[in-house]
Amino acid sequence: MRKGVHIPAGFRFSTVEAAIKKPGRKDIALILSDTDAVMTGSFTRNAVKAAPVRLDMQRIRSGKGRAIVVNSGNANACTGVRGMKDAEETARSIADSLHLKGTSVYVCSTGVIGTPLPMERILPRLPELASAVGTATFDDVAAAIMTTDTFPKMASIRKKIDGRTVTIAGVCKGAGMICPNMATMLAFLITDAAVEKAALKAALRSAVRKSFNRITIDGDMSTNDTALIMANGAAGNAPIRLGTNGYFVFEAALSHICAELATLIVKDGEGATKLVEIIVKNARTETEAERAAMAIANSMLVKTAIYGNDANWGRLIAAAGYSGSAVDDSRVDISLNGLMVCRNGMATGRDKEANELLKNTTVTVVLNLKLGKGTAKVLTCDLTEEYIRINAEYRT
Amino acid sequence: MRKGVHIPAGFRFSTVEAAIKKPGRKDIALILSDTDAVMTGSFTRNAVKAAPVRLDMQRIRSGKGRAIVVNSGNANACTGVRGMKDAEETARSIADSLHLKGTSVYVCSTGVIGTPLPMERILPRLPELASAVGTATFDDVAAAIMTTDTFPKMASIRKKIDGRTVTIAGVCKGAGMICPNMATMLAFLITDAAVEKAALKAALRSAVRKSFNRITIDGDMSTNDTALIMANGAAGNAPIRLGTNGYFVFEAALSHICAELATLIVKDGEGATKLVEIIVKNARTETEAERAAMAIANSMLVKTAIYGNDANWGRLIAAAGYSGSAVDDSRVDISLNGLMVCRNGMATGRDKEANELLKNTTVTVVLNLKLGKGTAKVLTCDLTEEYIRINAEYRT
Repeated sequence: MRKGVHIPAGFRFSTVEAAIKKPGRKDIALILSDTDAVMTGSFTRNAVKAAPVRLDMQRIRSGKGRAIVVNSGNANACTGVRGMKDAEETARSIADSLHLKGTSVYVCSTGVIGTPLPMERILPRLPELASAVGTATFDDVAAAIMTTDTFPKMASIRKKIDGRTVTIAGVCKGAGMICPNMATMLAFLITDAAVEKAALKAALRSAVRKSFNRITIDGDMSTNDTALIMANGAAGNAPIRLGTNGYFVFEAALSHICAELATLIVKDGEGATKLVEIIVKNARTETEAERAAMAIANSMLVKTAIYGNDANWGRLIAAAGYSGSAVDDSRVDISLNGLMVCRNGMATGRDKEANELLKNTTVTVVLNLKLGKGTAKVLTCDLTEEYIRINAEYRT
Repeated sequence: MRKGVHIPAGFRFSTVEAAIKKPGRKDIALILSDTDAVMTGSFTRNAVKAAPVRLDMQRIRSGKGRAIVVNSGNANACTGVRGMKDAEETARSIADSLHLKGTSVYVCSTGVIGTPLPMERILPRLPELASAVGTATFDDVAAAIMTTDTFPKMASIRKKIDGRTVTIAGVCKGAGMICPNMATMLAFLITDAAVEKAALKAALRSAVRKSFNRITIDGDMSTNDTALIMANGAAGNAPIRLGTNGYFVFEAALSHICAELATLIVKDGEGATKLVEIIVKNARTETEAERAAMAIANSMLVKTAIYGNDANWGRLIAAAGYSGSAVDDSRVDISLNGLMVCRNGMATGRDKEANELLKNTTVTVVLNLKLGKGTAKVLTCDLTEEYIRINAEYRT
């Protein structure tokens, strides 16, 4: 077990190698709750949804489940009727081996789009995946779900609720094709807290909105984004209900975990050398602040300027200007890592100093629009030659 | 005069060097009509507009003008009250030298944002710019307005209207920060046709919509985009009125010129190695077709895949899926340079052949959504390491 990562009670894990994309690594993971868990999820808003996403969206309506099977190396997206059959068959195999109800198993996939899953290699390994449950660590799960990720991503937190210690832990994968609404991002959250369905739903929605939905690497939203949470109640607390103190503690803890995982995703952005925090303050509304921050975060010109240590704040103000949010450039202040480079829409003459500050591997950009009280923060990374190399060669 | 570029009667040009960004090249150009011209324009929809854009938007309400002064090397954007004064003073100086009404002179700027114009170097050169009119060619104008452009961009066409030969010619500059609504794109169209104001307005709107507004290089919309057209009537035709045969001939000719100029801009996209044509067919509406095509054209993952000769059509369908337009992936056909790689949302197994076809420097992507009759074409280019290098180092 990784030092410092707390694992909630009543969950077990396993991983196997099915050589989905290539041999040499574990590429299927199983997360099993020992008892029925309350579950909810958040899914891509892309009109084109991978088969496992469509399957999980049906199953999540029950509000419960026992297991999640995840494969990397193949997204099982744009695979037609066969794709749906493959996702169902994967779930059924695990359910059969573990004597679970078929619909209590969820399936997630990530990887290349448009290639059917190699079921001839996957199916023979599933009984072993089921029987080996308990032999793998949460780290192993985090590693098995990686695609172009360069490190496994985990976080956990412990809180007292209702006199009991409850634990929330999460793993995720990201790297490329990350945009609001969780593009090619998979996140699995597990907790031993007992949580009512409505409360779990509200807490996840709130946590996702300010974490996974406020990160962007390249502006591309995938067909497979999924965040699932399982709450199995093994901590023995009275089920957390909406609006209670316990709820707020739980929601804050979950938000914390999601924010931590989201930050890890951006830190591991394909080819990225810098973590960039875009804060838009005092927009007319929070939605307008978010829209302006997202436009800046997705601007190729902004991202390349930051990569090049160039305090080219004109690109920041231009991106805010075309975001669709109200911007009066004669009021805009912009600071880069604490140094004001633009006051009331004009240069302060400190770009050279700012260029130096941009050499930091963490860059904080603050735009103060002075039009209202809406504030939002979006995380992104710089855009480098390495991103191009990775994505020009991804399938080859 | 460049071989093959026809120049409309009654226009003269000049250029001077003011070392705006650096010395060594002509960086201010003047286009003068010998008589009052009917004028109309199309401007950036960015909320943050450069001073010259705001000035021209006021002046264009008169529907006429005599001259356009253009500088490269500095956008005169985010330059506050001073920026507006500088733009006005530039126009006034030319007007004084040429004994024109002050408001009949238009000003355009392109280059870095946030730095005031070096008026101490510009103002002394303006009388010479005015007096030298007639000494420069249209090529010289095209060269003077370049920023990171690698070649001057011109086009012209001749048509018979009302028994007279009328000529339309245009210059433009582009290269980076190109997105719909004409990001850092300047285009100047001149014609000796006599055209009524309403007809000129309609013809320009129609031509821009399917040309400059359907190209994208990096998805960034600038503070300075401007297309201006001057029609001085020197051809002696009866003024072209809306809805007449002459109007349709003129509109088609203008659309042709704008499309040609727009294509040149994309061909010269920063760091680009390929011209990419994205055609979305049979969307529910033309607007949905355009939105899907634009999402694909702006996708970093699509652009890097094309750069890498990777027929990764999953990225195409994913981008269409998140565009907001209706997409039913089980109906989508995709072809790359004529080869179908995806039929009804599934692989045809011909990606390797398609990879070979992508080595062509012109790539045509066709998505057939089979949902309606809306069709649109967007031009873009691939995304390369060179784009990153250019934009990470632009100001340094």
